[in-house]
Amino acid sequence: MSTHKFEHPLNEKTRIYLRIESLLRQANLASNFTDNHHYLLLFRALFDMVEIFEQIQLKSELAKDLEKQRLAYRSWFNVDGVDQNALTALLQEIDLAHSQLMTAERFGQALKEDRFLSSIRQRFNLPGGACCFDLPALYYWLHLPIQRKVQDAAKWQASLKPLSDALGLWLKLTRETGQFKDQIARAGFFQSDADEANILRLHIPMEFGVYPMISGHKNRFAIKFMSFESGQACIQDIDFKLAVCS
Amino acid sequence: MSTHKFEHPLNEKTRIYLRIESLLRQANLASNFTDNHHYLLLFRALFDMVEIFEQIQLKSELAKDLEKQRLAYRSWFNVDGVDQNALTALLQEIDLAHSQLMTAERFGQALKEDRFLSSIRQRFNLPGGACCFDLPALYYWLHLPIQRKVQDAAKWQASLKPLSDALGLWLKLTRETGQFKDQIARAGFFQSDADEANILRLHIPMEFGVYPMISGHKNRFAIKFMSFESGQACIQDIDFKLAVCS
Repeated sequence: MSTHKFEHPLNEKTRIYLRIESLLRQANLASNFTDNHHYLLLFRALFDMVEIFEQIQLKSELAKDLEKQRLAYRSWFNVDGVDQNALTALLQEIDLAHSQLMTAERFGQALKEDRFLSSIRQRFNLPGGACCFDLPALYYWLHLPIQRKVQDAAKWQASLKPLSDALGLWLKLTRETGQFKDQIARAGFFQSDADEANILRLHIPMEFGVYPMISGHKNRFAIKFMSFESGQACIQDIDFKLAVCS
Repeated sequence: MSTHKFEHPLNEKTRIYLRIESLLRQANLASNFTDNHHYLLLFRALFDMVEIFEQIQLKSELAKDLEKQRLAYRSWFNVDGVDQNALTALLQEIDLAHSQLMTAERFGQALKEDRFLSSIRQRFNLPGGACCFDLPALYYWLHLPIQRKVQDAAKWQASLKPLSDALGLWLKLTRETGQFKDQIARAGFFQSDADEANILRLHIPMEFGVYPMISGHKNRFAIKFMSFESGQACIQDIDFKLAVCS
């Protein structure tokens, strides 16, 4: 039976982290240019990220969050039953990601300074604006050999590596704090305390034909299940799995 | 030697026709869902088209333009040397496209009335806004069997078929009016009369490393070639092929 896997951020900062993770993944997948339209996905992901970077100070937020994780893991030193070698390796990984983050340029700086990217960024978001006559330089670039395009994409992505490494590590460690437990949403509704959590993860059997609408913040949240076909709130009991990740 | 193929519309209406053609092609290619990210291309194309349909009365413009082509081709009846069978077949094709266009609903009406599409349209254009927590209904839909997704995509595209057929025919006939001729842009610059033309088509050898910047309207146009690597105007002579399509 197939399962609908779902994640919900419980604060604005984590919401942005998850968006960036999704855009980094999109840019990464599109960078092999195996599909004729991959370039649309790649540039859209890069430009969406630049827009987000302009709105918030992502680097300092992420550095603070990694620092919190470092302190939390340090408290496990010399605790019985904790694998000290694994702990040391993990702390080294956090140290490396943190220091690379601190020495990195402002996120998106290289993308904003790239002449080619900045020449196409404004028109790219017009409805249907990615035609050759709107973006002649882009269409020249699309005619270049694939090696050159892959090389350019790798250069743009490399400028985001400190972000990608640090964010990937923070999200991995955050997700690992939650354990999936069986839950029942009585008459399609479930609520609980969150205790400073960042992410809710849900596994919902597809057979119920529902998707979740989640409201909440770091201390408390509510899940209302909606029927996809009717668009109305579901009133049957829903068995699902939930992990609350701090 | 590879060639950079380029098209430029000489009026605002043709500009929109070419945008819609490109979006229809994008939606069509993405509707097989062979790539994990095709859904992004499909929905973006559909929503971009709905936005364009809201801005202009595309249907009546296109009907007028097809009517003009019908009159032009009718004048070839009983002219020596014109294949009358081919002409009759073509006129029947125009009649059919025109009558299907006239009986079609307003373009995009079915897409705007589709509950699922309208539930995801607003958030879809946020930067990075296509995450599961922004669009839970979309993420449920993505977990459905591929047959269901292909079926939904076919339904959305079917609602655009009268547009697609009429536009495809008008553009095909328009492009056929132009014949490619060898031209030279002295010191990277070329200008000429256009005589009520709609589309310029260019074939530019990639070896020059240039892309065109075109300005103009239906009676006159100028082409300035730019060097891709320097971003500056090119000052060498450029051999290219040009077709002016009315």
